[in-house]
Amino acid sequence: MNEALFTANNVWMLVATVLVFIMHLGFSALEAGFVQRKNTVNILFKNAMIISIGLLTYFAMGFNIMYPASELISGWFGFSGFGLSMPEGDAGAIAYADGGYTYWTDFIFQGMFAATAATIVSGAVAERIKLNSFLIFATVFVMISYPITGMWKWGGGWLETRGFHDFAGSTLVHAVGGWAALASVLLLGARKGKYTRNGIKPIPGHSMPLAALGVFLLWFGWFGFNGGSVLSANPVAVSLVFVTTALAAAAGAFGAFIVSYSLFKSHDLSMVLNGILGGLVGITAGADVMTPMQAILIGLIAGAIIPLSVVFFDKRKIDDPVGATSVHLVCGIWGTLAVGLFGAKAGLGQLWVQLYGTLAIGLFTFVFAFSLMYILKITIGIRVSEEAEEKGLDIAEHDMHAYEANLEQAAYNLSVK
Amino acid sequence: MNEALFTANNVWMLVATVLVFIMHLGFSALEAGFVQRKNTVNILFKNAMIISIGLLTYFAMGFNIMYPASELISGWFGFSGFGLSMPEGDAGAIAYADGGYTYWTDFIFQGMFAATAATIVSGAVAERIKLNSFLIFATVFVMISYPITGMWKWGGGWLETRGFHDFAGSTLVHAVGGWAALASVLLLGARKGKYTRNGIKPIPGHSMPLAALGVFLLWFGWFGFNGGSVLSANPVAVSLVFVTTALAAAAGAFGAFIVSYSLFKSHDLSMVLNGILGGLVGITAGADVMTPMQAILIGLIAGAIIPLSVVFFDKRKIDDPVGATSVHLVCGIWGTLAVGLFGAKAGLGQLWVQLYGTLAIGLFTFVFAFSLMYILKITIGIRVSEEAEEKGLDIAEHDMHAYEANLEQAAYNLSVK
Amino acid sequence: MNEALFTANNVWMLVATVLVFIMHLGFSALEAGFVQRKNTVNILFKNAMIISIGLLTYFAMGFNIMYPASELISGWFGFSGFGLSMPEGDAGAIAYADGGYTYWTDFIFQGMFAATAATIVSGAVAERIKLNSFLIFATVFVMISYPITGMWKWGGGWLETRGFHDFAGSTLVHAVGGWAALASVLLLGARKGKYTRNGIKPIPGHSMPLAALGVFLLWFGWFGFNGGSVLSANPVAVSLVFVTTALAAAAGAFGAFIVSYSLFKSHDLSMVLNGILGGLVGITAGADVMTPMQAILIGLIAGAIIPLSVVFFDKRKIDDPVGATSVHLVCGIWGTLAVGLFGAKAGLGQLWVQLYGTLAIGLFTFVFAFSLMYILKITIGIRVSEEAEEKGLDIAEHDMHAYEANLEQAAYNLSVK
Repeated sequence: MNEALFTANNVWMLVATVLVFIMHLGFSALEAGFVQRKNTVNILFKNAMIISIGLLTYFAMGFNIMYPASELISGWFGFSGFGLSMPEGDAGAIAYADGGYTYWTDFIFQGMFAATAATIVSGAVAERIKLNSFLIFATVFVMISYPITGMWKWGGGWLETRGFHDFAGSTLVHAVGGWAALASVLLLGARKGKYTRNGIKPIPGHSMPLAALGVFLLWFGWFGFNGGSVLSANPVAVSLVFVTTALAAAAGAFGAFIVSYSLFKSHDLSMVLNGILGGLVGITAGADVMTPMQAILIGLIAGAIIPLSVVFFDKRKIDDPVGATSVHLVCGIWGTLAVGLFGAKAGLGQLWVQLYGTLAIGLFTFVFAFSLMYILKITIGIRVSEEAEEKGLDIAEHDMHAYEANLEQAAYNLSVK
Repeated sequence: MNEALFTANNVWMLVATVLVFIMHLGFSALEAGFVQRKNTVNILFKNAMIISIGLLTYFAMGFNIMYPASELISGWFGFSGFGLSMPEGDAGAIAYADGGYTYWTDFIFQGMFAATAATIVSGAVAERIKLNSFLIFATVFVMISYPITGMWKWGGGWLETRGFHDFAGSTLVHAVGGWAALASVLLLGARKGKYTRNGIKPIPGHSMPLAALGVFLLWFGWFGFNGGSVLSANPVAVSLVFVTTALAAAAGAFGAFIVSYSLFKSHDLSMVLNGILGGLVGITAGADVMTPMQAILIGLIAGAIIPLSVVFFDKRKIDDPVGATSVHLVCGIWGTLAVGLFGAKAGLGQLWVQLYGTLAIGLFTFVFAFSLMYILKITIGIRVSEEAEEKGLDIAEHDMHAYEANLEQAAYNLSVK
Repeated sequence: MNEALFTANNVWMLVATVLVFIMHLGFSALEAGFVQRKNTVNILFKNAMIISIGLLTYFAMGFNIMYPASELISGWFGFSGFGLSMPEGDAGAIAYADGGYTYWTDFIFQGMFAATAATIVSGAVAERIKLNSFLIFATVFVMISYPITGMWKWGGGWLETRGFHDFAGSTLVHAVGGWAALASVLLLGARKGKYTRNGIKPIPGHSMPLAALGVFLLWFGWFGFNGGSVLSANPVAVSLVFVTTALAAAAGAFGAFIVSYSLFKSHDLSMVLNGILGGLVGITAGADVMTPMQAILIGLIAGAIIPLSVVFFDKRKIDDPVGATSVHLVCGIWGTLAVGLFGAKAGLGQLWVQLYGTLAIGLFTFVFAFSLMYILKITIGIRVSEEAEEKGLDIAEHDMHAYEANLEQAAYNLSVK
């Protein structure tokens, strides 16, 4: 390949990397907006640490588990040693990926993805998990579990061999994060006062502007998440992915708008915001093989799923403050299956692969996450004290307020009157 | 053209697309910051839906009205059918735009622009318009009116033929949005309590950090808005546009700073923020044909216009909570005319074309928007009840608070004492 | 060089420019979050004006001082006239930088850097400096002092000749801003009530979400700050810089986490956020010559320095509300020296050059900034009245509230009870 084309490809992959990076701000803002004021510092702290942990562990082990040079169990598991080892010299770095990007680009783009999976969990377990337990969970999960299942497909493992199609990670990233979230929530239990004898008490988030900011930034970053998954700057491929991604997100907003208005008779902003995310998660598996019209259909359905799924989980007393399981798990599975239903790859055979692919990865992830969280539960504990939950984690775990104290004080004084 | 250059061009156009996308977050934050607390959810909801509506309607019809394959009324109107129809195969997508970008890139870049025009309206009508009426207005406006006038110039219509110059849309996007805003505000009337017997009562926005965030993001996105309007990655052309755009924005801040300090004897943050936007709108028509010094002059004047225009509209009891008419309409016209006054195209003949071009587009847009809003007014109504306006649209239309309720409560309790 | 490669290089440099631009929003949000509510408008106003002043003065003089065509004092000072003068025609603009980018790109990329140095000061002097004095200081500092020391290295001056290595500006941008901040703080004194007989009274920032938003945006922008400093899109070089930059930031969070937990026994969000920034500042001088492992080490130490440095300055009653001196000055020096300790350039000779290079630039900057601020102090004054400080600068200097007034009122009423 000529130097200019290689350079253009690599520029695009680095831009995509930057876009995926800013999704971590998107997640931070979304989750912060959807929790109560008293737990805001805690969620920001978790998110600042997760991107840090994600990158460091992916450097330490994850990258070499996900893309192993040699495999211990063929198609299932491999590990090529700690740290990074660039192929010899600049020439090696360039030769590495056959025209798309350098060795370093590959690592940093994939590293940004890795941390995402753990971030998904942080929203679902918000407002009641012990900080240290969560940080340990996130570290082990992103260092070992995420790259193992990632290897099955993107690392050339057994699901790749069988034709499982997951373009940018509806399953590999989003459903994986979603399963881990579900396992954690089941072990953790609901927030105090959420499910009462008199029914479900909504606990609204403390800042809708923060939540909206988060969703717009996630959409923004998703152009890199999906667009970068082309793994080159191929003009037709990347631009088609832009179109399908944007239209699915737009249709997701619309689907959530219609269904939530039908169900609740109000214009629910949080549903529309999660509808956008649902549409994005839904198109992620097949963004490269859909027509614009098919992308709209997939997004519309994903958006429509959101309010239904939120109600479903709430009825089962599965308490997820930000709706992460609905967005990432349910729409992640939907998007993976949609590849078998619509678009260039549709067909019964494909649908079957998509189904067992997403289930296999889900099963592994759920068992891993459940076991890990369970060990933490019976050892150092995973849930804060009732008193800490009441006071808020900002004070209990950080001894800080998220906002200026006299306002906190004003609100508190009035609320206790 | 060789593959590498085409790829580099297309990468730039996609990056520009992403940058224009994030302007929608910029508008959301700016408008949310400039409205009262009690209408924050409403404005965020509108903005989340507008980007969704903008993309879906541009897919459905807009793109094929703006760039019609065949014309019904030569130079004035055409329509090439619903939905997208990519030229045959990958080769077709590449051949499409003669070296700059693919068919998909063209659609998604232009689609991001389309939604912008409707977003401009949402700020001006904030705090009192009925949500459903606004959504219908935005849908029809962005689906039909915006692409028709867009076609006159960018679609190769009659204004293109006569040499009207509007590089990135001082008129085609910003003044168009501004005229629609003005028509809407005239039919809607001012917010309750704004213009009283004792004079004009300022209704300050509820969050200056949100407003500032919005302006910085808009400036950020404008590098894609103007830089992408080169329609390729031509190094000299794009980098000159970056320089003129940045310097005009900087000068806009300065112009607004000086004039507003002279007028009001205080350092008014909202004037400086709108001054930046005024500078950006002003340079948009001629960002490709100005020297840096000319760009500074255009921005300086645009910034200086802002405080004067805000006072002008307020004296006429035209109530625009975010100053959208001053920024987008007045500075949009200024920028369009400036192409006839300064730079490579300056001249009396050009000035005349600029004048009747912006007036023709303004006339069509104003009549269209006024008629559409008028029909909504006499049918389903466009204004919320006095009670809803008093309580705030967040509760009246969404049954939600933007911020945690106990604080709302605290503020409310104290304010009613 | 062929057209396609030149275009790809230039695209990357423009993307980097946009990323550096958004760092100004990062600084605005960070500083706004770390100050008290009552000074929020003031800090936003300063930051909006600084980017404007930075670009306009860099256009007027700075660029031609930093990269002079001819030198008055060889290696130390030159000036090639006011304003920009592009080499003849498009060909001149292209030929200008030998393959990496056009003349315009060079100016706008460097211009974004210039404003950064002044922004660093604004955080340190927040909550008590007179607005006009600060604006004058920033104008003169960024127009004259920053480009003079910049010329010593990046403009081909005496430090370049001696092999001083400062890849993207640990010293040239960050320590320079830090020294100016230190000089200003020494002349300005601490905020009222910070250092009392009973010890140091913490004055917490008013919004941790804003501060976190700022740090994520700064990290985001740093990929352009460091990545763009390659001055081309060279795939191996830029992608290595991405890896070292990201890992140093991640390690910085970790270093600050560990040390601050050891010292204070709490999970301090502001330390972790500043730890990320410390890691970024630390890697900036050597991002091109470190291995990933060395980058982690540099970042880890930089992060560990943050809490120690904050305590150090506080003990000496040097009051810096946002920790700018710790982040930019201390970690800037650390990063500069680290080039002599680790990586491809390490060695005693290099360490010696790094040491006197950073000291020489520091000395010049400190003397310049101190003198300038001192002149302002004895003429128009630099500190607001005690009453203004008490009331807050938003009301005293801007006659505005940052947030909706009834809430302000609520808080105020309760706090005075």
